[in-house]
Amino acid sequence: MKLEVVTVGTELLLGYTVDTNAAELGRALAAAGIEVVRRTTVADRPDAIRAAVADALQRTGVVVTTGGLGPTRDDVTKRVVAELCGKRLVLDPAVLSTIEARFRQLGRWPMPESNRSQAEVPEGATVLPNPRGTAPGLWLEDERGRLLVLLPGVPSEMRGLLAEQVLPRLAQRDGGDRPRVVLSRTLRTTGVAESSLAERIGRLDEEVAPLTLAYLPSPDGVDLRLTAWGLEQGEAEARLAAALRRLRPIVGEDCYGEDATDLAAVVLEALRRGRHRLGVAESCTGGLVAQRVTAVPGASDTFVGGVVAYADVMKTAALKVPLEILQAHGAVSEETVRAMAVGAQRLFSADCTVAVTGIAGPTGGTPDKPVGTVWLAVAVDTKLRALKRLFPGDRDEVRRRSAQAALDLLRRALATS
Amino acid sequence: MKLEVVTVGTELLLGYTVDTNAAELGRALAAAGIEVVRRTTVADRPDAIRAAVADALQRTGVVVTTGGLGPTRDDVTKRVVAELCGKRLVLDPAVLSTIEARFRQLGRWPMPESNRSQAEVPEGATVLPNPRGTAPGLWLEDERGRLLVLLPGVPSEMRGLLAEQVLPRLAQRDGGDRPRVVLSRTLRTTGVAESSLAERIGRLDEEVAPLTLAYLPSPDGVDLRLTAWGLEQGEAEARLAAALRRLRPIVGEDCYGEDATDLAAVVLEALRRGRHRLGVAESCTGGLVAQRVTAVPGASDTFVGGVVAYADVMKTAALKVPLEILQAHGAVSEETVRAMAVGAQRLFSADCTVAVTGIAGPTGGTPDKPVGTVWLAVAVDTKLRALKRLFPGDRDEVRRRSAQAALDLLRRALATS
Repeated sequence: MKLEVVTVGTELLLGYTVDTNAAELGRALAAAGIEVVRRTTVADRPDAIRAAVADALQRTGVVVTTGGLGPTRDDVTKRVVAELCGKRLVLDPAVLSTIEARFRQLGRWPMPESNRSQAEVPEGATVLPNPRGTAPGLWLEDERGRLLVLLPGVPSEMRGLLAEQVLPRLAQRDGGDRPRVVLSRTLRTTGVAESSLAERIGRLDEEVAPLTLAYLPSPDGVDLRLTAWGLEQGEAEARLAAALRRLRPIVGEDCYGEDATDLAAVVLEALRRGRHRLGVAESCTGGLVAQRVTAVPGASDTFVGGVVAYADVMKTAALKVPLEILQAHGAVSEETVRAMAVGAQRLFSADCTVAVTGIAGPTGGTPDKPVGTVWLAVAVDTKLRALKRLFPGDRDEVRRRSAQAALDLLRRALATS
Repeated sequence: MKLEVVTVGTELLLGYTVDTNAAELGRALAAAGIEVVRRTTVADRPDAIRAAVADALQRTGVVVTTGGLGPTRDDVTKRVVAELCGKRLVLDPAVLSTIEARFRQLGRWPMPESNRSQAEVPEGATVLPNPRGTAPGLWLEDERGRLLVLLPGVPSEMRGLLAEQVLPRLAQRDGGDRPRVVLSRTLRTTGVAESSLAERIGRLDEEVAPLTLAYLPSPDGVDLRLTAWGLEQGEAEARLAAALRRLRPIVGEDCYGEDATDLAAVVLEALRRGRHRLGVAESCTGGLVAQRVTAVPGASDTFVGGVVAYADVMKTAALKVPLEILQAHGAVSEETVRAMAVGAQRLFSADCTVAVTGIAGPTGGTPDKPVGTVWLAVAVDTKLRALKRLFPGDRDEVRRRSAQAALDLLRRALATS
């Protein structure tokens, strides 16, 4: 099955909001074997919504929209779609009482009048219950078999409706033929340049056809994504597995995981296997390394704690970096980062620590140590290794690359320890 | 001027990559008075790119594309656009030597052969130099006045080319008439529900027409965005300023700033004004509060440091939370969060501290303290205030809401201290 997505929101075109919903929809639909062939984004304007939905319906016949179902006056998707399909909006008493119950439960009673409009549905539409919010989803099929699915723009509500209501209905609708899927597998790399990977990999893409191979660079590294398009599930899986077996040895230890694997989760798993306990000492990353580690559910069995030693006095007080080292070599130096890693072992009573100190910018650079200069160190028991990197990009990007590099240094150290 | 954006990348449709570029483009173009009327996203497939670019050119006449200019074999935008315009691709010796120089400078010599293709340009196109990467931008105008601008997909490269090359050229091209702008102003709120704001604000949108008013909810709060569409600069600014004067007292102290203001930056500025020094003690947010604070350039003059006291032993060891308190009330309690804030004052020799402890999930909830229960405390000198919140959402969302609420508690405490 192929479909188009129309995301509605002036804030998306103005760039005020990043369209994370669109990405989530894409992932969930692809995983269900549904190919998104085009995505269109338009403003909260009736004419723009109407044109985009009509174009997409005509081209592809199945359209999922997100956004514009809220209680406020800039929310117009439902009205426009009802008009486009020649349906009236009617108040659905069951939906109204669900919304009212939600307001009572949250202790927000009386319900604002504006939320009543969320109980209006186009005649003949199927209401998709939304336990996470006030706007239900809507499912409209016409006599020509064309399908329109309206979802709210709030990410958690969109996500829940998609998984619980939309995907099962799409699968049922698609039944009959043997289902074909769009399936991807990814190798994640970090610390190696896109074109170096391309040189090593060469023309492997011709060998693995009809699978496609894409290089996806980001500040976290380069992902290598193999995709099977419109094959049967079994064949797609077998071809992807075979292609991965060819690709993996070429990439070697630069690969830290597959698919959506997070480097922090890989590191935590390696720490667990070695029965290590982790402490983190950060300066320029300002808590980002600890935040990456603790974003992984269950980190508490391995992660003891972190210190953000931003002021130099914290480096000497909490991490016991000798003042002479700071004075002789500066806060961004091999000597300091090594002392931070060792000091963190003591502070956290942890056998394993990682330390980062650098110049994230925009100011603070010198000819010797320009913005982007970062020292990283990892201590595992008595083994200590340090590494200097020079990262491109602005403050955010230097910090993000630094945190990723710190986690990767830890990964490589644990692999050889 | 109106234009359409076409973002190219299979990874965008598959949801593998969130299209942050599109948001940046939207912001920069709107600020320059250029309205993005539609955005289309297509896969790295010649037929899909051709159809989307041709549709957009026909509808709107000015099209900016991002993506598909890289050195690898899945990068096809340039070739497709050249075909669509009936132009040959020719090797540009100046571009080639720039790319070669870049590889030499980065110490990556010899240059991978694949990068040579990045020096090919459609005949008659203007090359837009890209000092941040290897793929230059391209500017193609045809005899009918239609315009195609091709930009790379790497965010820092796209951003640089846009600011330095594309916006000045678009402004020049648009010259002649008195320029009309699309201008937005935003009030940012946190800690108050969308429909409560809507009740307070009522039908103000009718009063401020032709400006539009949008409610933009996210885990960080609700933004209220006023937009002037296609007015002259002076009139747009005057109308927006008048509307803001009406809106601001209605929102009151729930508003923490305007436009792209970051709550962490607001808090840092308030701390500076009061000559405070800040320390942070975190548990469930795991470094996120410190990371938010240190993401602001120049934080080092005010932020001393942070501790992520994830294991309870760190709460007693580093923050001196009495063991009796932890045992009697648990790690997520008013008593513990107060002790954390006071302990952080001592640890960081800081007069001002913020502390967070909670249950981010997915496990760890109890009937008494379900997932989403978070205690926050702020200490300013000897004044201490604590607050309990129950946040909806998954682990990420609870952590994000907790960090925002901690910063907001600090903001409100500083405003009254």
